[in-house]
Parts: sequence; C-alpha cells; structure tokens
Amino acid sequence: MRANVLLKQGVLEVQERPVPTPADDEVLLRVASVGVCGSDVHYYKHGRIGDFVVDSPLVLGHEVSGTVVAVGRDVPESRIGERVAVDPQRPCRRCRQCKSGRMNLCPQMRFYATPPVDGTFSDYVTAPADQAFAVPEAMSFDTAALLEPLSVGLWAAHKAQVSPGDQVLVAGAGPIGAMVAQAVRARGATDVVVTDFVDSRRERITSFGATRALHPVADAEEIAALRADAFIDCSGATPAVLSGIRSTRSGGTVVLVGMGADEMPIPVSLVASREISVTGVFRYVDTWPRGIELVSSGAVHLDDMVTARYPLEQVEDALNADSDPLSMKAVVVVSES
Amino acid sequence: MRANVLLKQGVLEVQERPVPTPADDEVLLRVASVGVCGSDVHYYKHGRIGDFVVDSPLVLGHEVSGTVVAVGRDVPESRIGERVAVDPQRPCRRCRQCKSGRMNLCPQMRFYATPPVDGTFSDYVTAPADQAFAVPEAMSFDTAALLEPLSVGLWAAHKAQVSPGDQVLVAGAGPIGAMVAQAVRARGATDVVVTDFVDSRRERITSFGATRALHPVADAEEIAALRADAFIDCSGATPAVLSGIRSTRSGGTVVLVGMGADEMPIPVSLVASREISVTGVFRYVDTWPRGIELVSSGAVHLDDMVTARYPLEQVEDALNADSDPLSMKAVVVVSES
Amino acid sequence: MRANVLLKQGVLEVQERPVPTPADDEVLLRVASVGVCGSDVHYYKHGRIGDFVVDSPLVLGHEVSGTVVAVGRDVPESRIGERVAVDPQRPCRRCRQCKSGRMNLCPQMRFYATPPVDGTFSDYVTAPADQAFAVPEAMSFDTAALLEPLSVGLWAAHKAQVSPGDQVLVAGAGPIGAMVAQAVRARGATDVVVTDFVDSRRERITSFGATRALHPVADAEEIAALRADAFIDCSGATPAVLSGIRSTRSGGTVVLVGMGADEMPIPVSLVASREISVTGVFRYVDTWPRGIELVSSGAVHLDDMVTARYPLEQVEDALNADSDPLSMKAVVVVSES
Amino acid sequence: MRANVLLKQGVLEVQERPVPTPADDEVLLRVASVGVCGSDVHYYKHGRIGDFVVDSPLVLGHEVSGTVVAVGRDVPESRIGERVAVDPQRPCRRCRQCKSGRMNLCPQMRFYATPPVDGTFSDYVTAPADQAFAVPEAMSFDTAALLEPLSVGLWAAHKAQVSPGDQVLVAGAGPIGAMVAQAVRARGATDVVVTDFVDSRRERITSFGATRALHPVADAEEIAALRADAFIDCSGATPAVLSGIRSTRSGGTVVLVGMGADEMPIPVSLVASREISVTGVFRYVDTWPRGIELVSSGAVHLDDMVTARYPLEQVEDALNADSDPLSMKAVVVVSES
Repeated sequence: MRANVLLKQGVLEVQERPVPTPADDEVLLRVASVGVCGSDVHYYKHGRIGDFVVDSPLVLGHEVSGTVVAVGRDVPESRIGERVAVDPQRPCRRCRQCKSGRMNLCPQMRFYATPPVDGTFSDYVTAPADQAFAVPEAMSFDTAALLEPLSVGLWAAHKAQVSPGDQVLVAGAGPIGAMVAQAVRARGATDVVVTDFVDSRRERITSFGATRALHPVADAEEIAALRADAFIDCSGATPAVLSGIRSTRSGGTVVLVGMGADEMPIPVSLVASREISVTGVFRYVDTWPRGIELVSSGAVHLDDMVTARYPLEQVEDALNADSDPLSMKAVVVVSES
Repeated sequence: MRANVLLKQGVLEVQERPVPTPADDEVLLRVASVGVCGSDVHYYKHGRIGDFVVDSPLVLGHEVSGTVVAVGRDVPESRIGERVAVDPQRPCRRCRQCKSGRMNLCPQMRFYATPPVDGTFSDYVTAPADQAFAVPEAMSFDTAALLEPLSVGLWAAHKAQVSPGDQVLVAGAGPIGAMVAQAVRARGATDVVVTDFVDSRRERITSFGATRALHPVADAEEIAALRADAFIDCSGATPAVLSGIRSTRSGGTVVLVGMGADEMPIPVSLVASREISVTGVFRYVDTWPRGIELVSSGAVHLDDMVTARYPLEQVEDALNADSDPLSMKAVVVVSES
Repeated sequence: MRANVLLKQGVLEVQERPVPTPADDEVLLRVASVGVCGSDVHYYKHGRIGDFVVDSPLVLGHEVSGTVVAVGRDVPESRIGERVAVDPQRPCRRCRQCKSGRMNLCPQMRFYATPPVDGTFSDYVTAPADQAFAVPEAMSFDTAALLEPLSVGLWAAHKAQVSPGDQVLVAGAGPIGAMVAQAVRARGATDVVVTDFVDSRRERITSFGATRALHPVADAEEIAALRADAFIDCSGATPAVLSGIRSTRSGGTVVLVGMGADEMPIPVSLVASREISVTGVFRYVDTWPRGIELVSSGAVHLDDMVTARYPLEQVEDALNADSDPLSMKAVVVVSES
Repeated sequence: MRANVLLKQGVLEVQERPVPTPADDEVLLRVASVGVCGSDVHYYKHGRIGDFVVDSPLVLGHEVSGTVVAVGRDVPESRIGERVAVDPQRPCRRCRQCKSGRMNLCPQMRFYATPPVDGTFSDYVTAPADQAFAVPEAMSFDTAALLEPLSVGLWAAHKAQVSPGDQVLVAGAGPIGAMVAQAVRARGATDVVVTDFVDSRRERITSFGATRALHPVADAEEIAALRADAFIDCSGATPAVLSGIRSTRSGGTVVLVGMGADEMPIPVSLVASREISVTGVFRYVDTWPRGIELVSSGAVHLDDMVTARYPLEQVEDALNADSDPLSMKAVVVVSES
C-alpha cells in the first residue's frame, strides 16, 4: 500500500509499505478522508512538538475516516463494509485515569502521528474496534474525518460547562474556533463572540456558530466590556488569553485549547477574586457518539468547512495549504467512497 | 382596578379592588398577559391543591408579563415604562436554601396564587424588582408570560443533565411537555421522543422540539426498547412513569415534572442496578435570564403555543379551555401593549 | 488445589481442581482471606439471585485478598510476592460505560461468584493485574479482603455527595451499614444516625462510625423529625426506605444499597416537591486506592469487624454464621500470611 | 462604646462612639473575641489593599463572635442572649450571583473592615440576623471567632473537590494553611503535605492536619515528585505556586488562597496537557453551619491555634504580633463571656 511518510523535518515521500494486519481487537480500514491538523503541519515544519521529536520516518495524519475491510479475531465479521470515523486514542484501559473516565489523560496513550506511532496518510490503517464508530450513509467521509476536530470543540465546550443562554467568548476564528463555536451553540449558548485579526475569517465564522465576530484591537473596548460566562481560547496568543480572562465574569470558566507559549503572565489575583476556573483540554472523552448525533441532526455542519481536497500524493500541498490562515480545513482524500 | 377572584371552588367574580402600592424593593406592574396553568385550573375545579386550600377569596394566575408603572423607594425610577416578565417566586433570601442557590426550596416562599397570596388575574400587581426581568421590544407580552412554564422546562432539563447528542424520552405532549422538549433541544439533545395518547397532541409536538412522537400503547414495544439518557415525565401518569424508568439507560436520569399520584410503585431494584438517578422539579432557579436569551435567539419559540386568548372578564372560559387536552395554552390578555 | 464448590442450592463440596493459569494481563493469587457476603449466603440458600441462577457447580466468594505467585506475559515479574486486595470487577473496558468512567455499569461485566464465573473460595484464583492492588505490610489479609464491602460504602457515600458537617441517616446496622457509616464519617459527616431493630447491632454500630443509633419503632418520632442531608438505606426493608425518604431534607440525596423488594411505593410527590435525588449503587469505581489509604491512615478500621474466621473446608459454617444478625462479618481463611 | 479605630496608615486610636442600632433584620452583638487577620495587618501597615483605600477612619476586624443583646423588628426577641459567630458577608441578596448560590461574588457586597464599612474592633456591632449563627455552649468565643478563617479553609477544600483518600499539597504553614490542612482532612484527605520555610511552622503544622511538612528548598526533589490530587496555595509566593502546579496530577485541581503577585508566569501548556483546573477562593458560601458541626464533633480544633490574646486597647500589639511568622493566631478579647 501507499504511505506518505515524513522522512525528516520538511521532507515527505510516498512509500510502498505492507498492509498492516489487525490485532485481535482491531479493525483494518481502507482509509477514505484524512483531515489536516495544525499538529501535522507543525511536525512537518519543525520536526517536533515539545518533547515529541520525529527522529525516524513518521506517517502523519490522525483525523481519519474509512471503510472496514478486515477484522481481528475478537471482532464480529459483520463489521466488514462498515463506514467509520475513528477516535485516534489508544489508551491503556488499565490505569487509574482510564478507569476513572479520563482515558484522555492516560500516561500510556498511543496516538496516530505522535512519534513513534504512525498516522493515517496511507491506504490502510488499523484501529481498535471500539474506537471505530459507524457513521450513517448520509454522512460524507470528509465529515466523518472532521469528527476529530469537532471532538476537540465538544470537549472544550463540556469543560467550559456551557449552559443554555450563556455568552461565550472564543478567541481565534480558525478551524478549531469554528468547531468550538458550533459546539457551544449546540449546548445552548446564545451569544457567541469570536475574535480574530483576519477580516475574512471573522466574516466566515458567523456561518459556523458565531453570533458576533470582533477584531482584537479595533473592537478592544467592546471585548473588554464583556463578562462572558465562558472564555475558550483557540488562538494560543498570549494577549488573547489575558484579554479573555479579563472578559470572563465572576464564577465563569476559561478553557485553553490553542497551543502557544509554555508560560503566560496570568492575572492570578483576578482569577482568585472572581473565582474563575481556568483549565485546558487534552484530547477528548466519549465525543464520537455525540458528534455523530449532532451532525446527523443538523445541529453541527462540517462538510462546508473543507476548503481544499488533495490526493494522497499531495500531502505536502495539503500541509502547506492548511498553514494558510485563509484556509479553513484541508482534507487528504485517500479514496473516494 | 379589576381583579377576577376565585370566591370558592368553581365560583369566580370580577371585583373592584384598590391598586396595590409597591414596597420599597418592589415594582408595580400594569398586567399585560397571564398564562393559564394547570394549577389555576385545579384550584378552580377542586378548591385546593394538596395542603393548600382556598378558604378565602383568591386571585389566580402566576404566569405574568406587564409594564412597570411605579417603583418602590429602593428601585430606580428609570425602570418605569420597562416591559417585564416576572419570576413569581418571593423567597425569604435568608434561609440556608436561599443562600445556597436553592431559593426554589425556601420553606418561607410566597408565590402568586398560592393561598393566601393573590395571583395576577388583575389590572395591577406588585413584584420584587429583582424578579421582574426586562424583555426585548421584539418579544410579545404573551411570550413574556410564557417564560414561566418555559422555566419549568429549563429547570427540568437542567436537573436531567441533558448533554449534546443525548436521547431524551418525554411523557406527555401538553404545554409542559412542549416546554421540556424545546428545553432539551436547546441543550443539544438530538433524539427527543415524546409520548401521548392524543393523536393531535402527538402531531403538534413535533413543532415544539420532539423528533419522534409515539403512542404509549400502540408504540409500547418501541418505547420499551429505548435506553434514553434521560426520561422526563410531564404526564403525572403512573404507567408512563414506570415505563419511562424502564426505558432509561444505566447511569441515566429521571425527572418527574407532572403531578400525579402521591405514591408510585417504583422499580427500586432496577433504579439501583442501573444507578439511575430519580428526582423531580419544584419551581426553578435563575431561568428567566436564560429563557429570555433562548427565545430572543430563536432557539425556543413560545408565541405559537397560544391557542386561545381571553379578556380579564373571561378567566372562567380560559380556565375551562385550558383543561381541554386539545388546547395548548390559553392566555388571559389583561391589557394590550 | 482445593475449591469449596456450591453444587446446587444448599449443597457444598470441597473438590480438587487444577490451579488456573493467568492470562497475559492477569496475576495468579494464592488466596489468603475471603469475606463472606450476603450474596454468597443468598446463592447458597436460594440457588439464585434474580435472573442469575446456579444451574451448574459454582465457587462462591468475591471479597478476596492474597499473594501474587505468578504473572501473565504482560505483567512485570516483580509483582510476584506482592500482597494484594482485589477489585472483583472484570469489565469489557471497551463499551461506552467503561470508557466514560462507569465500568461498574458495563453490560459485559464478569464478576467472581456470579454465574457462570467461579469465585474465590479456593486455594488459587486469577485476577486482572490492574485490579489487584498492593496493600501495605501492616494491613492484614482480613482487612484487605474487606476492602470490597468498604468499597460499597465508599461508593454509596460518593453517590450521596456527603459533605463535611452533613447529617446522614443510615438504615441498617449490619456490615454494610457499618461500612457506609465509616465512609460518610471519612467524608466529614458529623451526625451519623443509624437505625436497626436489633439492640446489640445498635450498640455495636457506634464503634463503626455512628454517632447515634435509633430503634425504627421506639424512636420513630425522633427519626421522623430528622431532615438529613443524605439517607442511605442498607436494610432493603421497604418501611425503612419510605421512612428514610421522609426524613431527608429538601435538596437532599437518597441512596439505596440494600437489596429488598423489586418495587416500593415511593412518595414521588414528596421526592419532587423536595427535589430529593433518589438513586442506588451497583458495585463501585476507583475505590480500592482510596480504601487502602483510608484504612492505612486510621480513618477507617476493618479488622475488628471480623466476628468469626473459618478454614476453607468450613465455608458452609461461615455462610450460616453470616446469616446470623449478631454476626458482623465472617471470613474464610484460606491461608495465613 | 469603645472602638479601636485606624485613623490612617499606621495610626490607631481608641474612640468613644455611640452604640449602633440594629436595623429591622439585624442583631446587635456585644463583641466577645475578634481574630486578627492578615488583611487587618495589611490595612494597618499599608493603608490599602488593592483598590480599597483607607481614606477616612476605619475600624478593622472581621473575625468576630459575641452575644446578642438586642434585635431588630423582624428578629425574634428570643435570640437575645444567644452566643453567636458571624459570617461577615452582607450581600445584596438580589443579584444573579446571590440568587445562584454565589453570594460571595456579589458585586454589591458589604463586608466588615473593608472601606468604608467599619469592622468589629469595638464593644458592639450589628450583623444581619441570618448571618449570626448560634454556637454551642461548649464552644469558646475564641473558637467561634476563628470560624471565619476556618471558612476560608472549608471553601478552599470544597473548591479543590478533595475526596477521601486524596493526597493534597498545601503551600504555607501559617494560620490559613492550618485551616486548609484541617479542612482537607475533614473531607478525607489522607496525605496532606504542607510546605513552609520556617522550621517551627513546619513542626507545628503536623498538629493541625498535616501528615508531612516539607521545606520548599531542602525537600524540593520530594515535592517535585508529588502528583497531588489537589494543590492549595496559602503562601501567595510565586515560586510555591509554580512548583505546586507542577506537582499536581493530571486531572487535578489547584486553588489559590494566598494573596501575592497580581500576575504569575503560569505554565499554561502544562495546565492544558494535564487538564488541571486552576481557580481561587474569594470569601465563602454556607460554611458556618458546617464549621460549627466540624468543631463540635472534634474533626477540627481551633482553640489551640490562638497564640496570643489582647484587650481591645491593644489592637496595635495584636496587629504587630500577627505579622510575626511564629505567631499562629492573635485574638483581641473585647469581652470575656
């Protein structure tokens, strides 16, 4: 089979590799669509993310959909032919985090495209059978792949405890901002204020859940006057985080989704005197079943987030496209349904 | 001013009464719309609800909107002219329940149309200033009055901890069932199954949040096969409650809204082995600000629930109309805007 | 090895059986102590519990401690020699309940001494390595075995959301009542009222967490006057459950632990008007690490709950002893440390 | 009556003032004991705390107990003679925070010794009747006064969601650290690690809830190796906060109690990747009833925290004593019982 492999920082190559064999509790997928994520771009451009270093060839990609073409010994054969979206987490299932409903924090987690585990820019991949979720016929493979970034949005909205009628401030109108905005709307938020420097992104975001789109500088006064029930940062920009915290009401929540500086000068006395709860998200728990329902019901729409589609051979173009702030979401189409 | 007074069980009379004077922390309202509630009908027909007995003349009505026409000493005069919806609760604000965010459970609660406190079927009423919430110009007085039954739905959905993508079973397609169905949709429920014996009510409810409407007997098998994340009873019918509990998944929630038998033969061993949480609702907390936002955003619609409107002199007709299962909601129009 | 086997209702036999081989992710234990549980007694006396029928020979016992004597391929050899207490749950780890932190509700659960899975009244048993928890040297094997019923108490206290300074009403002063009383004390409850008909059990319970012990009939008035923050039933007696619900404050919690009638005439209108939350417990989640800490710190004591100890050959005597209300806890000592 | 008044930064004077008259919903107290708090010391030494400036004479003191000697019109006369501890919060009771159970975040809060509201270093003070809590005869007035700092500890432990068997790291072994340590023990924490630079404070803290006391530098390695379920900072020291966050487990909680720098360089990427929840406390909600129960039951002890007692004339000495790190708690004894 073909796999588009990151040989080292900045260098990709399409290789022929053997089709993997599913373990007892796994399914083998013929890959359909793979969304391009900022982390893929980061590995490609920098060769590392924090302590995770690409020191041997690595297949990128982890937002994946496909069709089950083979199953392991413990998996019913009836699943062959099933169209699925994959939760890319392979937790140990045995540690205290896993057993307490926090599999996302499992210290033994294995995850597509996180060294040394290969990702999904290839014709076939294996996945744990229970992490491959059947999707309805009406759902496109692109949308099925985008359930992964939607999961980030759903988990962030969950952590922010967004309730009906809430005002939510979201920093960053990129793809994750759009997922978060749709997720908080699905929880009943009625005023979703998204900030971004780029005019076209602000315009676009009102189609993806935002009720208002503001410029961080030009609208600084309006932003400063907010007392949002929740602030969710999808920008990773320190000034946005600091401004967002100051725009959060007493007793409100702050959730950090965007990756940025390791440290930020957080106004802790304000956090304390307002009893604001500040946290972040790392992956997600139990979001695929919910995401599938939300898309199927029309509460969330993902297909129109795809701004460009590339064949497997052009992963490099897809990675470069995705780093363009005007791109919403690039998808690598490994096979059409 | 005019007040339509329940003299005793089944006997109403329009009386002239003095306009009340607002206390220091109150506003005086010129009443606009008053929704008719099942509890009003019950007092009218039976002269009591449980331990609350109508043993002296009582003005019924507690779902109320209007315009501020005078204010008490501690209330800014700028509120005069404000169009408002009223949370009818007058808690003591001093007991441990009130101070812990459970004002609805205050043992000293005073409440419109609960003996001996007069209700709102009159030209003017007073309300605590902080319980009279300004509504937007675009919101009709009828809708503003119906924020009260919507609050019941919002509080029930909150107690049921409904989350995005959930399946919710609702028993009863009357006005409260419709409020609950809309409230759970606003929290992201994607499959809202409502049961009712009356064909026309089942048809109508799909316009008010239900995704499926089933007949309790004809569709009994389909209902029994459900494993809903939450079951909310708005019927008060013992068979519906028992069936609903059995259709609730392990770890799910059951919320009793409808008033019915004092005791029911609850399958406690099933409740335990599924760790189902069973509770009920009694009034509501912090729901008007949320309700106003949800209606304004279009997430919830109330105007089209009104199936009949009556002048103040015809409260009796309104009470009789509301007891008709084909009626959705009767409103007494005390004054037009 | 020896196994004491329930051949059919009321008939036990010591048999020679092969020592089991641990699977890849399992440990093999030389069994030390096995607590006798009411469910063991029930299987022995009635041959079934609900839908679970003993229709082929079954080894009873599930409260177990022991020493690791062999390990499966995926388990570090260093664990050999470890003294452990065992969480008897073998969930599938793959269903939505398991992945959401509710492994106890896994529909695929396998559990010692629940047909057709053999229990622990034998010289050796296997256990999943992650469910066998190392205990300190200072902890006796009897206490280690009793971490299982303590887990029931901890989970019930968790479900009841007991907070510091709370008043808790517990019905039933048997071993589970004693576990619950200690567990709620460990969470800071300061007034723990336990009810029981048997004088000696009431006397004894004040050594195990109760601050007051009352007679259900003689002290009925005092019980009726309570407005407990939480009521936890460990009696299974319908009158106790009904009385306990009426003694729960508005906004309080009720947790059903004791097995009794399948149905009870619950005062649902009171549950609703007080917004009481009624639920039950079914097994437990993440309790062994907490139980080990609580016993080690002295917050909970278990050794002195053991009122009788029997060798493996005398399981029948142990089962008969445990059904005596004056017995606190019988332990089968398979091997001494 | 006498009042010991802060005329301006660093200048105190005993003045004769008229005894205040209780409002309708207030009680008048003859003051017994007043604990000295770091905030009193701060106003005395710096003339301000943040935006709160002492620009006219101010009576300090807010940790107060006493005896009811008169009551307002709406308060039963039977309360005269009652020994009480006072929750010093006077919230508006009408804003959305107050009505949602977050009175502590009320923007209209009035609070003893926060300009321009006089505090309790005087012979008599008034208090809202519902905020003056009866204490048992056996409880000393000193202890009753110290229910205020205990409330800080209880609220911090509540915010930290401390559960039985938890490990909790506390930075700072001063009086608030001691309150927090006792409060987390009361919630079942079994390993309470307190850090402090001062040897005698580390020694002393093991009598007040700590199971281990460590030196921030000498024991830095041991501290760094912790993965505490909760970290509660009572030091206000930036290095302690940063170190504490790094010693918090994935999914754990961080609560900031100590006042220190307005901003700190928080490791936000670690907060996100561990999904740590960081918040702070500002006053408290519903803690007096719990504190009274915990002290009465012996779970918490306060009397032996008092290291020095001063008459009303010597408030200045008390303020100076309290700033000594070797002092645990200074109390101004206005009247003996």
